[in-house]
This record gives sequence, structure tokens and C-alpha cells, in this order.
Amino acid sequence: MTSNITIIEMGPRDGLQNEKQTVSIENKVELIERLANAGMKAVEAGAFVSPKWVPQMAGTTEVMAAIRRKPGVSYPVLTPNMKGYEGAREAKADTVAVFGAASESFSQKNINCSIEESLERFKPVFDAAKADGVKVRGYVSCVLGCPYEGKVPVANVVRVAKALHAMGAYEISLGDTIGVGTHEETKAMVRAVSSEVPVAALAGHYHDTYGQALSNIWASIEEGVRVFDASISGLGGCPYAKGASGNVATEDVVYSLHGSGFATGLDLDALIETSVWISEILGRRPGSKVTLAKMGG
Amino acid sequence: MTSNITIIEMGPRDGLQNEKQTVSIENKVELIERLANAGMKAVEAGAFVSPKWVPQMAGTTEVMAAIRRKPGVSYPVLTPNMKGYEGAREAKADTVAVFGAASESFSQKNINCSIEESLERFKPVFDAAKADGVKVRGYVSCVLGCPYEGKVPVANVVRVAKALHAMGAYEISLGDTIGVGTHEETKAMVRAVSSEVPVAALAGHYHDTYGQALSNIWASIEEGVRVFDASISGLGGCPYAKGASGNVATEDVVYSLHGSGFATGLDLDALIETSVWISEILGRRPGSKVTLAKMGG
Repeated sequence: MTSNITIIEMGPRDGLQNEKQTVSIENKVELIERLANAGMKAVEAGAFVSPKWVPQMAGTTEVMAAIRRKPGVSYPVLTPNMKGYEGAREAKADTVAVFGAASESFSQKNINCSIEESLERFKPVFDAAKADGVKVRGYVSCVLGCPYEGKVPVANVVRVAKALHAMGAYEISLGDTIGVGTHEETKAMVRAVSSEVPVAALAGHYHDTYGQALSNIWASIEEGVRVFDASISGLGGCPYAKGASGNVATEDVVYSLHGSGFATGLDLDALIETSVWISEILGRRPGSKVTLAKMGG
Repeated sequence: MTSNITIIEMGPRDGLQNEKQTVSIENKVELIERLANAGMKAVEAGAFVSPKWVPQMAGTTEVMAAIRRKPGVSYPVLTPNMKGYEGAREAKADTVAVFGAASESFSQKNINCSIEESLERFKPVFDAAKADGVKVRGYVSCVLGCPYEGKVPVANVVRVAKALHAMGAYEISLGDTIGVGTHEETKAMVRAVSSEVPVAALAGHYHDTYGQALSNIWASIEEGVRVFDASISGLGGCPYAKGASGNVATEDVVYSLHGSGFATGLDLDALIETSVWISEILGRRPGSKVTLAKMGG
């Protein structure tokens, strides 16, 4: 295998959103710029969601205004509805992301509506984005399990992924939100989704709560997926398992891919430096084993 | 996939050997018995090596005398030479293990002789074990990298594995001692070794220093390997990267295998309990993400 794999950096959004501390605008901007300078082609920069629900994402407007945008790099922001989309447009976002769930209970508890209602809510966002020339990425959460329902039928994942693709999402990110899936479950899920949505439009988004994320990435690579979401230093936690890991650590994924002959365009040393830097700011140990090993513990 | 996979528990030996604290004989005995009660068919119980070099393994004679041996469970001990073998025989070990290296420098620094000399030293052990009806397991260390030489040619791994097999080892455990290997490197290494040694006689022994162990296990499963070494709670560290992880955590492997439809005969809840118990004794956080998630952090 010597092809390319793209990493979409989640640290500044999915990562920081689940950290206890709130990081200053200045440090968020530096984090995003460091990641782009390390070679990331996409760094999710924030979310236009209610600061009442997600206080860590307040200031996304300021962050978007302050970052020096690198040519060829995209800075997606989360937009759950038209209000969010308008914020994103004012902030000159080139890409927005909508997030649906494969689990009915999770949809209700996380975004206060049914799966069908959430898809309805996304339609005007897709329409407006199309008119504005803004790209839309779609997330499906709970693809391998739900904190309320347990197992999630693969058919639900296929249905939501297909709907987002049909509405015009250029990429569907399949999220194991609570990190419970294993290698063969991931393989089966990806195989089912890719029978209905082109595999080139799929991304894997795996949390490492149960230590399974990297093996799930490899299961997905074997099914043809070539885009993965990851979070520098494993930023983020799991609101459903206090103290547990969040997103898979970018450094561990990149180390694995480079060692296995894939090109990512990323500078691993620069990622490790950024991981150590942001961990110091957060007063936490880096969540990447590669970074810990390179630091000598 | 619905076949069986065997886990060989390394915690009491490879694990504790690399922990800073020395654990009491009483606690070592309890650890071994808990692991056997959780369903392990083999628990490596200690090492007959010089206490000058490995102080944590002093007391193996006392441990072997104290454990209540469960029928059908094996309690291998490490024996680098005839002196070690005699200790093991007096302790009524049913299985002994010899350890060679795929890297010349590592062999010199770890066991003070060349690879060829180490194989010569194992011969009388194999002969005596055969006469005594004792099984011999062979380890090959540094199969995916060496702390002194870096990359290790796959041909070295094949040569040492083949030699151990020819001398009569019933199983060859392929050790990524410093945890640097990745998925595709592991696959290539296992493929090369299994072209010369029957895959049924191979085991994977992967350290998680760089977070790669579980994905390397899956790479090996795809090549037909069905036996893996793992260490409860990820016990052990890496003497070459202070504070970094040691052996892959048993709980994370078992979770992955069960979720993917493999049977192991192990009781995951009992393993998690044991992991929490030994971590408290050592005053450390469990080194298993599954255990951390189940504990709620």
C-alpha cells in the first residue's frame, strides 16, 4: 500500500469541546495555525452552536476572524441549523458540517429532535450552502453504539449516511461517538454503508474510549476508506465515561500510516510539538502514546 | 470469524518485571490465581534469572511453590540457561521459555552474547526439557525494531524463529519489544516467518509503546495467528522510553476479540476486576482503556 490518506483534524472542535478547561481565543488560533502548518488540509475550527450548551465553542466567530488562512487548507465549522449556518457564513467559512445520529435516543438527547426532524432541519442549510458555494460535510454519530440504546442497527447508519449524501454532503464522517466498536464490527458497518454511498465519500471518525480506534481505522482502510478524523494529542474526552479517552490521537494514526507506507503530507514531528504545547496549556498529559514515547514519558 | 484465540498472560512476569515497585510474593500468587480463575490457560509466572539483573523476579521459586495450580492451566517460567532450567525443574514448572533476539546488539546488551551463542546455550535446555517432558516456548525479541539498531531485517526474525522451532519449541512468540512496529510491517513480518514456521506455532507479543499493539494483533490475525501474549492492565513499561506503555493490555485485546466474534474462554469482568486490584497495589492508574472506561475514568 503506498497511496495517500487524508487526516481531518478535530482537536480545536471535537477535542476542545470535550475538555473541561476553556482555551483562550489566542491559543485556539495558534492551535489551528500550528496544525495547518504541520500539513493538515482541513482543521475543524469551531462550532456555531448555543454557548449555553457548548460553552467551549463560544468565540468561534473571533477564532474564524483571527486565523491566517493558508491557501489550500479548509477550516470547517459545525452548523446544526440555519442560525448556525448564518454565523458560519458571516465568519466566511468555506465548509460547514451538519451532524445527525444513527440512534433515535441519541438524536433526541443530543440535538433535541428525531433523526427525521434533524434531516429536515439540514435541508435549508444544504440549500443555502449550495447557493453560497460552501461545501457541506455530514456527520453520523453513534454508528457503532449508543450510550442510551447500546447496539445500533447498521441499517440506521446506512439510512442516515445515504440521506446526507443525497442532500449533497461531499463527505460523510462515520462516528463511533462512544468508542465501543471493534475491528470486525467496524468492517461490517463500513461495508454496509459503502454498498449505498461511494466509499470515496466516506470518512472514519473513531473515538478511543475502549482503545479500539486505531484497529478500527485499519479495518476501514481494508474496506477502502481513505479519510479519517483525528484529534491532536487525543484532545477531548467522553462525556459518557468520565476520564476516558476521546478522539483517536492524530500522532498515533499518522505514525501508523507512515510506518505502513501511506503518505499523509503531515509532519509528525510538528504534530508532536503541537501536542506537547497544547497539553501544557491544558495542564494534562498528552493523550498520544507516540508523543509520550518520543518525550521519554 | 468465530474461531478461538488464545491469550497468554504476561502480567506476572513481563509486566511486573518492568514495573518500578516490587510486588510481594503473596500478591504475585494472588495475581496468578486470579488470572487463572478468569479463564487463562497459560499465565507466565516468573523467571529464573539473576536477581542482580532482574530484582523483580526474585522469589519465583516461592511463587511457584505457593500457587494452587489449576488443572489444564500452564504456568511457564523464563529460563535463559541450564542454571535457570534447573531452578524451573525444582519448582516443577510444566513449561519453560527461552528468549532470543532478532537483533545482534540487543542480544549482546540484553543477554550478553551473540544470537548464535544464545541459540547454543538453549540447546542443553531443550535437551533436558525433552528428557523431563517439559514444554519449551521460544521468544524472539526485537522483531519489528531494536532500541540500538533501529530497523531489524525480517530475515533475522525468520532465522531465529526457525532455529527455535527446529530445536523443539512448541510455540514461537514474536516480540515487538519496543512497540515500534505498525500494521503493514507486522503483516509483512508475520507473513515471512509463517512461510518457514507453521503459523499454528506462532504467537504475537506486541508492546503498546506507540499505541500500535492492537492494530498489529489484527494484522497478525489476518495472517492466521491465533495466539497472543498480553499483560493485565498493560502492566510493565518500556525501559527504553521512560513512562511509556509496556505490553498490550489484556482487557483491551479481549474486548476487541469478543466484540469481533472470537471466543477466548476469558471472563472480561473478572479481568477488569483483577486489573483494578493490581493497579491499586502498584499505586498506578490501570493501563487498559477498557478498564478505565468501565470504571468511569
